[in-house]
Amino acid sequence: MSEHKIYERQGYGGSVGFGNAPALLVVDFVNGFLDPELFGGGNIAEAAARTGPLLAAARKTGIPVVFTRVVYAEDGSDVGMFCRKATRLSQLTEHADTSQIIEGLAPASGELIVRKTQASAFFGTGLAANLIAKHIDTVIVTGCTTSGCVRASVVDAVSYNFRPIVVTDCVGDRALGPHDANLFDMGQKYADLMLCDDVVARL
Amino acid sequence: MSEHKIYERQGYGGSVGFGNAPALLVVDFVNGFLDPELFGGGNIAEAAARTGPLLAAARKTGIPVVFTRVVYAEDGSDVGMFCRKATRLSQLTEHADTSQIIEGLAPASGELIVRKTQASAFFGTGLAANLIAKHIDTVIVTGCTTSGCVRASVVDAVSYNFRPIVVTDCVGDRALGPHDANLFDMGQKYADLMLCDDVVARL
Amino acid sequence: MSEHKIYERQGYGGSVGFGNAPALLVVDFVNGFLDPELFGGGNIAEAAARTGPLLAAARKTGIPVVFTRVVYAEDGSDVGMFCRKATRLSQLTEHADTSQIIEGLAPASGELIVRKTQASAFFGTGLAANLIAKHIDTVIVTGCTTSGCVRASVVDAVSYNFRPIVVTDCVGDRALGPHDANLFDMGQKYADLMLCDDVVARL
Amino acid sequence: MSEHKIYERQGYGGSVGFGNAPALLVVDFVNGFLDPELFGGGNIAEAAARTGPLLAAARKTGIPVVFTRVVYAEDGSDVGMFCRKATRLSQLTEHADTSQIIEGLAPASGELIVRKTQASAFFGTGLAANLIAKHIDTVIVTGCTTSGCVRASVVDAVSYNFRPIVVTDCVGDRALGPHDANLFDMGQKYADLMLCDDVVARL
Repeated sequence: MSEHKIYERQGYGGSVGFGNAPALLVVDFVNGFLDPELFGGGNIAEAAARTGPLLAAARKTGIPVVFTRVVYAEDGSDVGMFCRKATRLSQLTEHADTSQIIEGLAPASGELIVRKTQASAFFGTGLAANLIAKHIDTVIVTGCTTSGCVRASVVDAVSYNFRPIVVTDCVGDRALGPHDANLFDMGQKYADLMLCDDVVARL
Repeated sequence: MSEHKIYERQGYGGSVGFGNAPALLVVDFVNGFLDPELFGGGNIAEAAARTGPLLAAARKTGIPVVFTRVVYAEDGSDVGMFCRKATRLSQLTEHADTSQIIEGLAPASGELIVRKTQASAFFGTGLAANLIAKHIDTVIVTGCTTSGCVRASVVDAVSYNFRPIVVTDCVGDRALGPHDANLFDMGQKYADLMLCDDVVARL
Repeated sequence: MSEHKIYERQGYGGSVGFGNAPALLVVDFVNGFLDPELFGGGNIAEAAARTGPLLAAARKTGIPVVFTRVVYAEDGSDVGMFCRKATRLSQLTEHADTSQIIEGLAPASGELIVRKTQASAFFGTGLAANLIAKHIDTVIVTGCTTSGCVRASVVDAVSYNFRPIVVTDCVGDRALGPHDANLFDMGQKYADLMLCDDVVARL
Repeated sequence: MSEHKIYERQGYGGSVGFGNAPALLVVDFVNGFLDPELFGGGNIAEAAARTGPLLAAARKTGIPVVFTRVVYAEDGSDVGMFCRKATRLSQLTEHADTSQIIEGLAPASGELIVRKTQASAFFGTGLAANLIAKHIDTVIVTGCTTSGCVRASVVDAVSYNFRPIVVTDCVGDRALGPHDANLFDMGQKYADLMLCDDVVARL
């Protein structure tokens, strides 16, 4: 039996639906994750390029936009277990070029920038509270990597009872196997999957 | 380039290491997840069977053991977005047979049972606080499903700076593709992967 | 200079305002906290009595109602530091008479009951996620004790960016000094203070 | 009956005890909270002065030291409900003089600085995870204000099952009534109260 069939028979793959108050979450599109020599590669560059029009549409519609960056203290005081698995992460510090959001997606004044040290945009950050303040019910997720910070953020988003929408052509990963596998997992269990054009049409 | 090679070149796949104060976490080995007609199938039954000796070893050594169950209120008052993706989950109520921990792994008195409504054993529960109270530094993770509650719990565990150890032959999933893909992700980014026998030898 | 004056000069005592989507939170009005020999006394009984009409008004209006109970496992597996400060708390178990919500305020089917082991109704519980699911922006707080679980819940509520409204004559404490002192703190820093009649008029 | 007597009869006022792995937490001793024209006054200056020797003792012993600062984004993107109650708080931005830790207690390299927007040092921050990474069991709390960020941090610390020790002569408040009232609450329910000299002797 195919994986899809197994999940379907057990009642997975339902829809969270698109709510009335969406926000756009742009996860970790920073220089270091666009660089194949550092954390990038795969389909990340294409995902970032396609996020440009989505960001423009979000701003035109006036929905809140939130960005995340990985930012560690320069003195190593907040380095933890995650950096043992991925040793280079701790180089992403406040002023490092590698931790700056890419030029094409630069935040505008008033758009929240979440600094994080863990995979999820929600863990140890003010993101949930910020979305509550703005009465958000739907979190449109773009960014990288699909199998890393996107996935972790989506799991937390649905756990908080936000409706996560993963924009499949605006998320990317350094390797396509994990990208595809995590889209499958998220689509079955945590989020609705939509194409960028369909999200733009919906805004 | 292979996925392993891509991750290796970017410095992923480091080791969190086995600490000095481990606890055993048994995720969602409840009747409903052992039943292929409900949430089970794949290699879940084998994983549960292999967890028996590990549980016995943990008890012999005296390390803390924690179990999780998915438990929703019978009146539906705590049902949320997760149940839209997986509609049957809300049937797992306090007294439902499907939400009882399987007979072979029944908790002993004094072993914490975490009731949860989301994927992660940490989300909206007292698990982190309980592990802090016991001065735990390492969380040995068994249970199901690898791509669901195990993965979500492991991501939160490493985010809290516990050392997650995934026991590869004591975690299972209804379909093997997601099982393997999530072991890859966890091994590269969030946890050390060990076989049951090696964990027992280490205790 | 009076305390009020000191706070006023420093810009404290602003208003969060009453939002458009309130929920009623009834904190720990359980038998044990109504019993002066256990955790009760002071003005708790009066506060509970006045909460009856507020609860009725909330139900009539159809706003969500949430109750909290302190519930520890019977085998002591989730007892922690809080119980070292207040040793009797661990007797409040699922089926203990002392941990049942008082008869006059019995929850109706579908009203969420949050089981907690810590002071705050939000800590280690699904409350924040539940309020998000219901698009709540305002948390009307009643219950006991003012200086304990009410205060802790209010601080978390405002931290999550909900608008906390403390119903001054529907919260009570075993001793009036801490009751008054905590109303002062909450009114200056975390919540708006309203009388029951004014809240009912607003619903 | 006196308040102390009421609490004693109900089993409050127990001791969490001083553990084996303490960390020193210095809450919000920043320029703005030392300035009586802004957020300061009362006994805050004395508390800060007495914290100097305690900080020196902590460093000599080698226990971890953590500082907190209130830091809001300059563009107002993370301002929420708390700032409605205390409107000036949002002026405490990364580079504002008022949000810098006072010269006498300047952090050394490697000592964690927690940036926060809410009262508790734990809410929306990486503090709990950082303390877990360092195997901390006891949190020695100094700073200001006693009735604000100290109290909120202490409640979260005990909820996470750390042992909170409030250093009574190293915490301060803009007004003495709330200072005393909150020491009473914390001593009865959430923390052990110790004098600075006794903590130093214990390190």
